[in-house]
Amino acid sequence: AACKFQRRRCSPECVLAPYFPVENTACFMSCKRLFGVSNMVRILTEGVQPAQKDDTIKSLILEADARQRDPVYGSAGIITTLREEVAKLQEELVVAKEQLSFLVSQLHQ
Amino acid sequence: AACKFQRRRCSPECVLAPYFPVENTACFMSCKRLFGVSNMVRILTEGVQPAQKDDTIKSLILEADARQRDPVYGSAGIITTLREEVAKLQEELVVAKEQLSFLVSQLHQ
Repeated sequence: AACKFQRRRCSPECVLAPYFPVENTACFMSCKRLFGVSNMVRILTEGVQPAQKDDTIKSLILEADARQRDPVYGSAGIITTLREEVAKLQEELVVAKEQLSFLVSQLHQ
Repeated sequence: AACKFQRRRCSPECVLAPYFPVENTACFMSCKRLFGVSNMVRILTEGVQPAQKDDTIKSLILEADARQRDPVYGSAGIITTLREEVAKLQEELVVAKEQLSFLVSQLHQ
């Protein structure tokens, strides 16, 4: 699979092979750039349960993709944007609820 | 600074030194584990403008910290949680606005 870029044959027990088929080299390249191949292999083999490999590689791909799009902030940039969005919505909700209780009190008069 | 862990002297031009003082080894270790030292140096020297180094390293530290706390989902896990939070708040806001327009129509009658 993606071992092509390392100019070596892919071994059958390669942990990365199922996740980076030959077709998807762009995705592999951004992961390689951010984490390095040996780091990814180590994360997948040491850090997580076999059943969680799938979710782990997906989250690594998401992080690498975010860093590719935004080299400075990466996925932290997405987190900041979402936190601002949450704060804005919470504020709007407070205002809406205040208006609601005001209207309810008006109706009761 | 953090070069201590690589058992070599820290050179004055080390790009990582300002961000990883000797006191903060835990932070350095989680960054090292996720990205690797050479990868971090490359990201800081090649990928971004000098003025953006500060924000870049902060976002890398945030990502490494998130991966440390959650080895499977890392910062992608935070993004998922925040997206769910945003969706929930948007839904609540829609309901509140519906109630508002209903009450307004009642008041007008």
